[in-house]
Amino acid sequence: MAFRQTYRPTNKSIAYQGEPGAFSELAARKAFGPRVRTLPCASFADVFEVVKRGGARAGIVPVENTTFGPIHETRDLLARHRLIPTAEITLRIRLCVLGLPGARVRDITVIRSQPQALGQCGAFLAGLKRVRVEPVYDTAAAARSVRLENDPQVACVAGRQAATPYGLRVLRSGVEDAERNYTRFLVVERPSERRKVPPSSTATTLVVASLPNTPGSLHRFLGVFAAAGIDLRAITSRPRPGRPWEYLFHVDLSGSVDDPLVRGALKAAGSVSILLRVLGCHPRGRTYQP
Amino acid sequence: MAFRQTYRPTNKSIAYQGEPGAFSELAARKAFGPRVRTLPCASFADVFEVVKRGGARAGIVPVENTTFGPIHETRDLLARHRLIPTAEITLRIRLCVLGLPGARVRDITVIRSQPQALGQCGAFLAGLKRVRVEPVYDTAAAARSVRLENDPQVACVAGRQAATPYGLRVLRSGVEDAERNYTRFLVVERPSERRKVPPSSTATTLVVASLPNTPGSLHRFLGVFAAAGIDLRAITSRPRPGRPWEYLFHVDLSGSVDDPLVRGALKAAGSVSILLRVLGCHPRGRTYQP
Repeated sequence: MAFRQTYRPTNKSIAYQGEPGAFSELAARKAFGPRVRTLPCASFADVFEVVKRGGARAGIVPVENTTFGPIHETRDLLARHRLIPTAEITLRIRLCVLGLPGARVRDITVIRSQPQALGQCGAFLAGLKRVRVEPVYDTAAAARSVRLENDPQVACVAGRQAATPYGLRVLRSGVEDAERNYTRFLVVERPSERRKVPPSSTATTLVVASLPNTPGSLHRFLGVFAAAGIDLRAITSRPRPGRPWEYLFHVDLSGSVDDPLVRGALKAAGSVSILLRVLGCHPRGRTYQP
Repeated sequence: MAFRQTYRPTNKSIAYQGEPGAFSELAARKAFGPRVRTLPCASFADVFEVVKRGGARAGIVPVENTTFGPIHETRDLLARHRLIPTAEITLRIRLCVLGLPGARVRDITVIRSQPQALGQCGAFLAGLKRVRVEPVYDTAAAARSVRLENDPQVACVAGRQAATPYGLRVLRSGVEDAERNYTRFLVVERPSERRKVPPSSTATTLVVASLPNTPGSLHRFLGVFAAAGIDLRAITSRPRPGRPWEYLFHVDLSGSVDDPLVRGALKAAGSVSILLRVLGCHPRGRTYQP
């Protein structure tokens, strides 16, 4: 991938939230190569902290899922920290049933996963009889618990990549319901790593704005981009910390911040905002099938 | 409360997601009185199902939190079901440390809660030494696990209302960080329970719209409401199920759907939308301090 060649690593690892086998770790390997050193973190906030302090060369965090929507914690952290998005990557999420070697799907009595993953395989779960479904905190943690419990009647729903780290087998693959489900991840780096993105329509610029609390303020704000013919890839409103019922708007614009058209629109948008900050700009990313 | 008198119960209970002691159960008691019969459900989807089938007279579900933002599952269920929002209520969320009778804060070695609740008491947790923080699925489940484990060194962070159901004591109250934190809940009922809301500025009308995937479509849509001077209380975009990278916009408008101004704007908004549905209209609700 083109963007890999422009990295100047200070520390070799890529930080992600979760445990080995998490989808974020898979995204890191797709973005930086299968042998990249990955650094599991307990929270998204920890990913941002460790990158900020130079303990990792970059972080990788989910920003949007096509079934569950925006990942708000990532948006909030982008607004709070000075890290910049420098690349993106999209993964198709495929779910598998993992169990101990020798386990069989028809013997399963307990199945664990993250609630959203369980929600994605309703049809499969409905076909299992006398199974107890247990929500746990993430898919890789579910895989680890199956290994620790060491009971062939206990299984989990997780990505295929979670089998190897815990010595599990794929008992059934592609158990998610028919709908295609993708997660878009952002690579975040320290501001000193900023690279110019050629003015082209395949770049995305992330901005966050606070708007006056008056009728029509969001309409006026969006009007600036509509007038310039700039497409919105995503818009998300987030509460302002400590200010109940006030909001920050995160807008992902199609176009490079180095494009004079985008620059002009941002200047005009700033004049109808209380506060406007460009979080960064990155080339549009590739989509990976599992 | 005025709206209580208009209920025509078919079954007496109010459905909520969670276990006894959850904040949603507290919201049900504030909305319907302390003696109301409540029905705990495993998921938000179950709340909608049981109300639809007449197994509860109404459901109560969170729709927005001032620190964590919109509750997307509620928005998705409102778009998918035919239940209507008929009232709202806002709770200030106050968090406490709960433990076994006789337990002391300084002896705690394990503290459990929902990750968001833990995130709300960072300063308090940082002041505890050698404590392991364990994320669990919800605050009331954390309280139940403390009772089951029966170890005075294990405590949880939950609402005060979770102490009594599990025989726990409040070891410390108000441990959330300084920021004020509120959750807005909606009461949902079957469509046959629809009541007129007098055209007044204190009503809220909920609509959901699918917009053409062209630059400026959201701007045109919002322009209709801006032109009519109708204020937006909230706007949230949600992914369209099974249609990656397409969105539904949920908009909460200030004003009653029975107000001709709002009616006119909705008609105009429909003409610039692929699909527009009025989910319902309810009077603005009260805010309760704990």
